[in-house]
Amino acid sequence: MIKKFQVHTDSQGLHEITNKVQAVVKESGLSEGLCTIFIRHTSASLTIQENADPSAKRDLENWLNRLVKESDSLFTHTIEGPDDMPSHIKSALTSPSLSIPFVAGKLALGTWQGIYVWEHRKHSHNRTLIVHIGS
Amino acid sequence: MIKKFQVHTDSQGLHEITNKVQAVVKESGLSEGLCTIFIRHTSASLTIQENADPSAKRDLENWLNRLVKESDSLFTHTIEGPDDMPSHIKSALTSPSLSIPFVAGKLALGTWQGIYVWEHRKHSHNRTLIVHIGS
Amino acid sequence: MIKKFQVHTDSQGLHEITNKVQAVVKESGLSEGLCTIFIRHTSASLTIQENADPSAKRDLENWLNRLVKESDSLFTHTIEGPDDMPSHIKSALTSPSLSIPFVAGKLALGTWQGIYVWEHRKHSHNRTLIVHIGS
Repeated sequence: MIKKFQVHTDSQGLHEITNKVQAVVKESGLSEGLCTIFIRHTSASLTIQENADPSAKRDLENWLNRLVKESDSLFTHTIEGPDDMPSHIKSALTSPSLSIPFVAGKLALGTWQGIYVWEHRKHSHNRTLIVHIGS
Repeated sequence: MIKKFQVHTDSQGLHEITNKVQAVVKESGLSEGLCTIFIRHTSASLTIQENADPSAKRDLENWLNRLVKESDSLFTHTIEGPDDMPSHIKSALTSPSLSIPFVAGKLALGTWQGIYVWEHRKHSHNRTLIVHIGS
Repeated sequence: MIKKFQVHTDSQGLHEITNKVQAVVKESGLSEGLCTIFIRHTSASLTIQENADPSAKRDLENWLNRLVKESDSLFTHTIEGPDDMPSHIKSALTSPSLSIPFVAGKLALGTWQGIYVWEHRKHSHNRTLIVHIGS
């Protein structure tokens, strides 16, 4: 089964989609299998991170923003603004696809794991995700 | 088929699990398909690296430890100690899931490829992995 | 279905394989499913990036080359030359496997997404890829 859905990201940062992905697993009716999520963009990506303490997500984002600076004299691809090229680099350093097994109809995530769309652009976007459920 | 197993990591670094994953492929009885490994943690990750020369793994780890420093004034998520936040960042820069095709009952790894749990914490941990075998 | 193919990389950088992967999906005869690509090397990796403007790929590569410098006194694994250890690190920071759903026989890529082999060595190589097509 393949299901497409959109995520609205209001700003740069991690936007949790765990419940949305779990809903697709449930809708499939399958008890056991593999759930693969794919994001159809090169300026936003997917990650699994701690979902308990917001400070972990904030530190993660601040660290990456310092590593991939906007005002970098190296960049020539700047038509769409200063956050354009950094967003491509951040996407390359993280991932466009994630695969998570599910058991008894539930994603086999660890206690502290949440699934996130990582928006790398500063303005709001509608991001399209494709979820594949296989047995 | 889905199989859960644990890996004991005695310290920070790369712990090879190639044989354990290959054993799950064999146990499935399938000749050809896709093997997906998922780690249920946000302070350890999965990677495929050279399995021949230990110096490659050592250099890789030293390089990442220099990039993601423990004593970083940026960090506010420090309750679990100085290696807590760096371990989340390192996990985000590597991967929680890996998919490897298998043919004739054997993982289609390259000659020098080994599968590793990358423990990012300094103390020993028991890490849970889920392996999904699909046709 | 599993299909193996080779990609010749003449030099360091991103080599597009979107058409080759799409051809495997078509050959499978399946209408809907999941396509997983795996690269059998630890000094080249896979990535999805913008396929429109060549400046994005160039900036991405220049940025990573500056992050992972060749002349690094940290490196002890130097037998195969100065681009050996950086290529392992770059592979670890990107990915050996990618999974992309397909619908109506076509990879569900976004408008600007292309699939690339990222050659991290400076000389030409023949890189082996394995593509798995599942329902």
